[in-house]
Amino acid sequence: MTSPPSLSELLDQVLDRVRPTYQERKRLKRVAVDVIARIDELAQTRKLECKTLVVGSAARNTWLAGDHDLDIFIGMPEDSDLDIALDLARKVALQYEERYAEHAYVHAFFEGFELDLVPCYLVKDAAHIKSAVDRTPFHSQYVSSKIRGLEDDVLLLKQFMKGIGVYGSELRVGGFSGYLAELLVICYGSFLEVLQNAGNWNPGEFIDLEGHSARSHDDPLVMVDPVDPKRNVAAALSLDNMFQFAAAARCFLRHPDMNFFFPPEIKPLSDEELLRSIQNRGSTSILIEFAAPDLVEDVIFPQLRKAEQSIRSLLDRNGFSVLRSDADWHQNISPGSDDETDSDGDKTSVSRGVARIFFELEIGQLPEVHRLVGPPAWKEGHVERFLSCHQELLSGPYLENGHVVVEVKRKYTTATQLLSAQIFDLSLGEHLNHQVQKGYKICANRDLLKTKDQDFRKFMSKYFSAQQKIC
Amino acid sequence: MTSPPSLSELLDQVLDRVRPTYQERKRLKRVAVDVIARIDELAQTRKLECKTLVVGSAARNTWLAGDHDLDIFIGMPEDSDLDIALDLARKVALQYEERYAEHAYVHAFFEGFELDLVPCYLVKDAAHIKSAVDRTPFHSQYVSSKIRGLEDDVLLLKQFMKGIGVYGSELRVGGFSGYLAELLVICYGSFLEVLQNAGNWNPGEFIDLEGHSARSHDDPLVMVDPVDPKRNVAAALSLDNMFQFAAAARCFLRHPDMNFFFPPEIKPLSDEELLRSIQNRGSTSILIEFAAPDLVEDVIFPQLRKAEQSIRSLLDRNGFSVLRSDADWHQNISPGSDDETDSDGDKTSVSRGVARIFFELEIGQLPEVHRLVGPPAWKEGHVERFLSCHQELLSGPYLENGHVVVEVKRKYTTATQLLSAQIFDLSLGEHLNHQVQKGYKICANRDLLKTKDQDFRKFMSKYFSAQQKIC
Repeated sequence: MTSPPSLSELLDQVLDRVRPTYQERKRLKRVAVDVIARIDELAQTRKLECKTLVVGSAARNTWLAGDHDLDIFIGMPEDSDLDIALDLARKVALQYEERYAEHAYVHAFFEGFELDLVPCYLVKDAAHIKSAVDRTPFHSQYVSSKIRGLEDDVLLLKQFMKGIGVYGSELRVGGFSGYLAELLVICYGSFLEVLQNAGNWNPGEFIDLEGHSARSHDDPLVMVDPVDPKRNVAAALSLDNMFQFAAAARCFLRHPDMNFFFPPEIKPLSDEELLRSIQNRGSTSILIEFAAPDLVEDVIFPQLRKAEQSIRSLLDRNGFSVLRSDADWHQNISPGSDDETDSDGDKTSVSRGVARIFFELEIGQLPEVHRLVGPPAWKEGHVERFLSCHQELLSGPYLENGHVVVEVKRKYTTATQLLSAQIFDLSLGEHLNHQVQKGYKICANRDLLKTKDQDFRKFMSKYFSAQQKIC
Repeated sequence: MTSPPSLSELLDQVLDRVRPTYQERKRLKRVAVDVIARIDELAQTRKLECKTLVVGSAARNTWLAGDHDLDIFIGMPEDSDLDIALDLARKVALQYEERYAEHAYVHAFFEGFELDLVPCYLVKDAAHIKSAVDRTPFHSQYVSSKIRGLEDDVLLLKQFMKGIGVYGSELRVGGFSGYLAELLVICYGSFLEVLQNAGNWNPGEFIDLEGHSARSHDDPLVMVDPVDPKRNVAAALSLDNMFQFAAAARCFLRHPDMNFFFPPEIKPLSDEELLRSIQNRGSTSILIEFAAPDLVEDVIFPQLRKAEQSIRSLLDRNGFSVLRSDADWHQNISPGSDDETDSDGDKTSVSRGVARIFFELEIGQLPEVHRLVGPPAWKEGHVERFLSCHQELLSGPYLENGHVVVEVKRKYTTATQLLSAQIFDLSLGEHLNHQVQKGYKICANRDLLKTKDQDFRKFMSKYFSAQQKIC
């Protein structure tokens, strides 16, 4: 028997897996230099004044091995037109798709890297930017000036956050951005000190590295942006992710384990496992499935959550008490296949995916009898109107606490009846309403077994386990 | 076809049924004179200073035909011992039972009348009484001085209240006392004017006949006692009974009908009817039955309501949502049988009855999975304790809104399991706890059919209809 590794051995083992190799770094460097040279060359030909720079984790050696993202910004003077830079990017990328943040940018695969070519304005000061991306070069500059010697700590922290599922500031995750992870390391001094401090966090935790905060924030964690005193770097971080990180940090320091960095892969549930979970829980499982609209994740995801909430409150309002719910969404495209399918020349990102919203109900069925509490007995007109609306009574009218009460036949005694009848009346978000109207599927309990899709089975596995690192 | 009777014809028909006959009045008078003579004679023999007087509805011709109650008060000087008067009463009554309000009194059957012989103090002023009964002679005097010519209106009002189920100030009813009915007629001037005015009542309605109110009250209806400015005559009246009366008054004035005064008798449900009701409603019906304690109604009834509330909140707390509930209680004694059963000479009133509490649940069964929301994630010690209490998890732990949540196996998945396990831990009221510990029965749904008792079947009929006169 070998004894478990010490904490520092464990961290070394993690670093061995997440630190890009010498070769990987050289390749990234070569690609970056190559792309920049091409842009600069083209710019010179066109007599354009612009400044090309590598930003993000690639620029400061804090990228995780295997994350082949390369962000190259094309800076333009404030009075110029960003479309000129966009056109440079198009020409250099050759094969690409155009994506949109505040302004269009180019996303391309290039020698094994995912390349973002982003036009931005070269402003004097991050507090006076014209577009959100203009801030990024300042972030890069700030971190580069402070991070020397702490790169491994950043890698450990990013991988830890990734492992426990709180890494990424996109809406789907609502977690820690890479920049935030870097600032935490700069703030506390090392990976382990970040964990130690996070374990004692409270809601409203406030960190101001430059001591220049210029606004108060209501967010669970406030990390004042060192380059823009009005901005909270952690604005996208949800309360639950903040404390999932804090709780996991405490757990890890007590019981260090490789699992925190590299959790076991989620296995799709087999028919037997799915059925056993449904039966053991004894609750009512309901799945709503429809085609996902052709939109990027940051647009779809909030709508999916909105739809989940709308349906949840419909169910709750009608007495079908929801225990828990979740939403999921899968694109069925594989990288590189876009051009084959989009032979008509449309080069925007297309997702032909499936959206799923899952509800677990404490109460899936209600009795026929339905009690309705009406107006106070002393409001004669209201009472008359109430009673004229409810003429077929199982019981009543009678008074309770001064109010007129009637008992009538319930319109929908099962949650699926209710959903089928009212899903079109809900506000599910602009694009989803449209998708649902085109067609949807509702199935409950054992009928879930008919959905064999492995993404769905993994989603169910995660749902039923719902286990986070808390101790 | 005969046309329906006019309102005044209808009221005359009611009076024909509720006005005591000439003969009935003579008999009452004779019994009263007879009893008073005997008391006075005995008092003289014993050289006692006392004043015997008829009080209540019998004294002022406002008793309903068939109500053979006769209240005779034996007034004693303030400095004397009421037991002396009680002893007079015992001797005169011969066969009697002793009952207790604030002080003991004698209840006897006497020539077809139910006779209460009540010792009281002769005080100068109803505002300075020594015991609640001392006020009664003042009430009698006040009403007698004002009611002449309005006796029929009182009879109509009492019968109307009786017909709609709001007559009687005992705790079981929480309705209008006879005295309150008389004061309402004195206040508004006639039966119909009482109805007209009541139809416009609001909560907190305030009536002060003598304009001498000396205290504010929080009750739904305040009728300042003309003989005691601090007292609210309507203190026992519940909000629901007040407005049941108001609503029925409006209905009656719109659609006068004999039914308001003499509702059809409640027929016990047959097996088929009971089963059909249970099935049509689709809810979970639960009956708890146990022997009623040997106590008078005004002691049992509040305990029964308390037990109903305790059990209701146990069910609701555990997710078994209660739609409605009711309690009932029947004495199985017939008048006059006491002396046969109590051959040991114990002459206090004995009830060998049955108590029933009925619950109709929206949710009679819950899933195995049970969600428990724990402390906020940033309370480290609380989280540890919470998690150490819940180690066998179906799902979790996970965070939701900053709180640690776990999903465990539910201990009781049906309401009857829960009740059977926890009924002894509830606070059901002193005497009921004892009775339940001696033995109780729980049955649900179809098993209710096994209870053939006609009182129970009437109770169920009333429960399922729950129809009050509201329009």
